[in-house]
Amino acid sequence: MTASNRNESVPSSPQDFATVFAMLKPHMAALDVFMRKQLEEFEPEIRSMADYCIDTSGKRIRPALVFTSGWKGDEISTDLVRIASVVELVHLASLVHDDIMDEAEVRRNRRTAVREYGSTAAVLLGDALFSHALNLATRFPTTEVCSAVSDSMRKVCAGEIIQTLRRGSTNITRADYQRIIDLKTAELFRVSCYLGSRYAGFPMEFVEAASSFGRHLGIAYQVYDDLADFFGDEKRIGKTLGTDLASGKITLPLLALIDRLPTDAKDELIEEITGRRPPQPALRIKQMNELGVFAFVAEAVQEELRLAEAALAPHLALAPTPLLLRLCEVLRQQVGVLRGAASA
Amino acid sequence: MTASNRNESVPSSPQDFATVFAMLKPHMAALDVFMRKQLEEFEPEIRSMADYCIDTSGKRIRPALVFTSGWKGDEISTDLVRIASVVELVHLASLVHDDIMDEAEVRRNRRTAVREYGSTAAVLLGDALFSHALNLATRFPTTEVCSAVSDSMRKVCAGEIIQTLRRGSTNITRADYQRIIDLKTAELFRVSCYLGSRYAGFPMEFVEAASSFGRHLGIAYQVYDDLADFFGDEKRIGKTLGTDLASGKITLPLLALIDRLPTDAKDELIEEITGRRPPQPALRIKQMNELGVFAFVAEAVQEELRLAEAALAPHLALAPTPLLLRLCEVLRQQVGVLRGAASA
Repeated sequence: MTASNRNESVPSSPQDFATVFAMLKPHMAALDVFMRKQLEEFEPEIRSMADYCIDTSGKRIRPALVFTSGWKGDEISTDLVRIASVVELVHLASLVHDDIMDEAEVRRNRRTAVREYGSTAAVLLGDALFSHALNLATRFPTTEVCSAVSDSMRKVCAGEIIQTLRRGSTNITRADYQRIIDLKTAELFRVSCYLGSRYAGFPMEFVEAASSFGRHLGIAYQVYDDLADFFGDEKRIGKTLGTDLASGKITLPLLALIDRLPTDAKDELIEEITGRRPPQPALRIKQMNELGVFAFVAEAVQEELRLAEAALAPHLALAPTPLLLRLCEVLRQQVGVLRGAASA
Repeated sequence: MTASNRNESVPSSPQDFATVFAMLKPHMAALDVFMRKQLEEFEPEIRSMADYCIDTSGKRIRPALVFTSGWKGDEISTDLVRIASVVELVHLASLVHDDIMDEAEVRRNRRTAVREYGSTAAVLLGDALFSHALNLATRFPTTEVCSAVSDSMRKVCAGEIIQTLRRGSTNITRADYQRIIDLKTAELFRVSCYLGSRYAGFPMEFVEAASSFGRHLGIAYQVYDDLADFFGDEKRIGKTLGTDLASGKITLPLLALIDRLPTDAKDELIEEITGRRPPQPALRIKQMNELGVFAFVAEAVQEELRLAEAALAPHLALAPTPLLLRLCEVLRQQVGVLRGAASA
């Protein structure tokens, strides 16, 4: 569920990050071909298992960031395809491990790897995917890609560990929340933009701006996703609402609700989070609406999107900039969809 | 248990790989200092957890192979210390994951990471250790170390996956067994020797010979370890005998026993392996003694040791060669200790 919250609840509509640009279609097709080809490098005995994990139904947000940040026109750069493959493989490996930890049965409308092969094989399979991702990352003239990606990977894990250790605890501040999502989600968004712009040969000022953009977009995306856990369309996002509350994970909507409840009601909510009382998601969603939590969290998304946009302001003339800015609009629209559902 | 079988049952005697050479003491001390220093690179929130995993009580067989293969005299090479740290971190990360899968409570006389922090945090902690190992591997002028180590990591995982999928199945040949241990154990031994000799600047013919030596030593070591699972001294190796039988894992001693039993008795053993009948380790050990299984498996160890020695034969004049050959003698002595116990 950490993983699904991290990135899986974006509705599969034409407004997805990866599908917003029709022009990226050939890039995504090239990525698919490249990733399928990677299977040959796994031992024959585990190839079908790796194949199962490298499915093509994912949203490919990180590859979209790589291609968009490095946009120079229609030509498909083999370097960027390889980089996109590295970040996507790291992401897919982390999903395999997340599904074990969350005992998830289904992802993207089919059985998870852990459900299919058992948890032992799934731990190892995730490790094998990580290994291959980093091996691919060494296929550049310098150690830079592998260094950047392995550093990001450790940060993603650290963020997840910190979140895991805090589950069921209410001793968490807004700053703690911000740090967790910065590590677990924003870091891989950041490195995708960093490597995409850098390997496309853009000047370092832009590479740094794109990295900062990616980081803020990642934070905005995770806050949005945490909001969708309470206000999403169950059918469309394909999961039950309020899973964060049920699993004792304090996200920004819950933090904001705790802040706004009177003492007695607050204690009751804390008992739900800490597992001493059954969770009441419907009541909590109602209270969030009444107490302005939706508006507060939506504003937190906006704030990060503004920081993302500000980072790119000095680079409006470069080809990637208008495309990256459009991603901010996509996320704004998605928040709007939640708002519509919330007020309906 | 895969892990413990892989490498943890060598008795902690002065004849251990890492302690056989007094001259390696300063190298191991430098390794300890270097590995402790790595903790600073983990996020503060997970530092104490990483510290718990990077304990100094391990046998450090792989670092010993790095230093020995690259032996050029007393001087401590910072490159080799870093390489030793990379292979040991990969190994420690794999132990953290193995202990989750085996639900192990204790390793090296203290609680396992999974017991200490829970399985979710332990999966992520293993991932963070892997990430940092590969990040360290990028701190060389070229991508070679990271490329070699990430490739080995995938092989180790593949070997473990194949073994896992075969648990409780008797449909396994000697060739299957050989392939599994080649991947899960010999590969990291091989790459330790490869990188040690290569980064010490030895000629490529020796680097290749040392790699071949490492591979055969690794196979010999794993076969020995699988033999120790039936014939070891429970107190000294710190675990119950016959765990492979109990977990349905077919190793060479069991393969050889199946081959030697008459049909009825064989069917009964197969029922034990497949979990349809409680395992009878004492009976199986007795039968192994009576039917010459010990001698057969001990000979398999010898065979690999001879191949290891043969690989080095053209390089007797180089400084690492006599040291590496001594490791073969150490393993022979350890098999001798088992034989003494078996015939007692």
